[in-house]
Amino acid sequence: MWRTSGFRLPNTKCMILVDMWKRLQHSNVVQLREVFTTKSFGDYSIIFVYDYHPGSETLLSKHFSQTEPMNGYTDPFSADPNAPRPYSHQKNTLLRQQATSMLPESVIWNYIIQITSALRVIHAAGLACRTLDPSKILLAGKSRIRLGCLAIADVLTFDATAPNPLHLIPHYQQDDLTALGKLVLALACRSLIAVQRENVQTSLDLVARSYSTDLRNLIMYLLTNQQQQHKTVTDLMPMIGARFYTQLDAVQIRADVLEDELSKEMENGRLCRLLVKLGTINERPELSLDPTWSETGDRYMLKLFRDYLLHQVSEDGRPWLDMAHVVQCLNKFDAGSPEKICLMSRDEQSILVVSYAELKHCLELSFEEVLSAAIKTE
Amino acid sequence: MWRTSGFRLPNTKCMILVDMWKRLQHSNVVQLREVFTTKSFGDYSIIFVYDYHPGSETLLSKHFSQTEPMNGYTDPFSADPNAPRPYSHQKNTLLRQQATSMLPESVIWNYIIQITSALRVIHAAGLACRTLDPSKILLAGKSRIRLGCLAIADVLTFDATAPNPLHLIPHYQQDDLTALGKLVLALACRSLIAVQRENVQTSLDLVARSYSTDLRNLIMYLLTNQQQQHKTVTDLMPMIGARFYTQLDAVQIRADVLEDELSKEMENGRLCRLLVKLGTINERPELSLDPTWSETGDRYMLKLFRDYLLHQVSEDGRPWLDMAHVVQCLNKFDAGSPEKICLMSRDEQSILVVSYAELKHCLELSFEEVLSAAIKTE
Repeated sequence: MWRTSGFRLPNTKCMILVDMWKRLQHSNVVQLREVFTTKSFGDYSIIFVYDYHPGSETLLSKHFSQTEPMNGYTDPFSADPNAPRPYSHQKNTLLRQQATSMLPESVIWNYIIQITSALRVIHAAGLACRTLDPSKILLAGKSRIRLGCLAIADVLTFDATAPNPLHLIPHYQQDDLTALGKLVLALACRSLIAVQRENVQTSLDLVARSYSTDLRNLIMYLLTNQQQQHKTVTDLMPMIGARFYTQLDAVQIRADVLEDELSKEMENGRLCRLLVKLGTINERPELSLDPTWSETGDRYMLKLFRDYLLHQVSEDGRPWLDMAHVVQCLNKFDAGSPEKICLMSRDEQSILVVSYAELKHCLELSFEEVLSAAIKTE
Repeated sequence: MWRTSGFRLPNTKCMILVDMWKRLQHSNVVQLREVFTTKSFGDYSIIFVYDYHPGSETLLSKHFSQTEPMNGYTDPFSADPNAPRPYSHQKNTLLRQQATSMLPESVIWNYIIQITSALRVIHAAGLACRTLDPSKILLAGKSRIRLGCLAIADVLTFDATAPNPLHLIPHYQQDDLTALGKLVLALACRSLIAVQRENVQTSLDLVARSYSTDLRNLIMYLLTNQQQQHKTVTDLMPMIGARFYTQLDAVQIRADVLEDELSKEMENGRLCRLLVKLGTINERPELSLDPTWSETGDRYMLKLFRDYLLHQVSEDGRPWLDMAHVVQCLNKFDAGSPEKICLMSRDEQSILVVSYAELKHCLELSFEEVLSAAIKTE
């Protein structure tokens, strides 16, 4: 995925951070590939090149887009969701929002595990995410989380006058954990206004009512601001607890499903190559100055096999199309099965009985012949 | 995978346990499908039907098969590994075994996480594994663990006289954890004799010297026999700690790789279908009593395209074979690209300039024609 952010001149020193980000690889992080400046857009721009994950959407659009109108009920305040509202109205909105579209707790834990997994590696690498925002977190498929837009904040807010570019990282790491707390709270309430300072208490009550104590403790721990306490991702692990096992099981099952599908689809590549080989031989205009090459000898058998494969007709002369027939025959052909089939010449005057193994042998010989002709004088 | 175990008459009551096993699904368990009795082998047999995981091998054969001869040194006791040996010799064997082929600690943790994951679900379902033995644990690929042969012990040692078939389960669950401790110890020492009672202390010293404190604590916890203490898998989680994250990352990366491969192979399926369609039209002997159908009109263009695709020759008349050319052309063809190509008739007298989009249109029309002829009178 490419993201451009125009109008900036970078300080070359910040490339230390960019290099650290480029080295960071994790399955829950959108990999940064390259950062460069360009004038191609007619201004001073800096371009961040990331891996592209097709079909992903942000957590913001997935869980926080207020779309469904509530069965005809129109909200008098809904024109501008950010307009100031009476307190009780905000509270009601929160309650209604949560009641209508609560996320299953397992989904929230799934996100927490993946985000903490990424944060753990980021923090261990001496970096901070700084953009832990629903609009920057990508969701691929149903459940795979990836943190995006990493390194952008580091580059754009880079202070070249600071003695050490890494000086503020520990501070930003604590900010990451607070941001995670806000994110989880917002997800649990399905509303971004839930994390506004004046609503936090209401939101926490909501969480306590609907979700497990573990989830509430986790949010409390992350949002409580104790200056002397240095928080780390590892502290969250006991609250996540045995949910790690659930998560592992889910990912392993997904890998199994993919492997199953893959083993089915692998066959396609094989059949495709077989068809190309067969096609290379059938109807070839000439080989080694012999214009009848593809019509004689072994090639004639392959031509008849091609007809058997693709040009069968039913008794009353209608074409007979059956993909299963094609695939089955090609598989037996490729395996060199000893099974025999009847090939009929086009004039219906002669019938050849031949096994798949013999046909395969014909294919190999003929293709070898084409191949050696191809490389003869090279 | 099918495993048969002959010469037994089951008690029908034990089917309660079998049903519980059949309901148990987990990615680290070989799924039990069916249990039935048969006389097909000329005796009373009971057959257990499991999922089959091709290419798996047991932990026993992977890590405990003493194969490599140690550079010419022959062990005077090696003829029978179970023969009694002097104490110092066993200790030496242990030391030598571990020094030559120590398993990386991450591999052992990987196994622990997967096995505890399975045990957790098994125990939660009110069952006990009872066969946690290297010869019953399957390893698929490099790292996927699956517990096999489940339910067999339950059925074969079923005591019909006991008032409650589930009575002994809590006891067996504790046995599972002890068995896990022994297994981990054996893996760490790469030797099955390491877990014999008289060698355990030596083995633990070895583990302490080569591996982390966490691993040693885990083994100690599992092997220490305190009657009053009820051990559970959950107690092990703090010792596993952040390794859960490493594990998750590894599995997710594997799923990503599989998904990548799958998306590539999906393309093959598409190209394969395209080749079959094209082949169905090219050189069709006749359609609707018109023997020249495949040589005229749209079909003539497709025929020339086929030649362009598969029968190109170099300047000096040698066949020119290039799979990349075939795949690239087919992709442009399938996408209906506006790019134009030159098709030359076989007599080299006329040249057609045509876009992939037009060719695609020809294919669709022609295939439609074959298809409608095929279903006309059905």
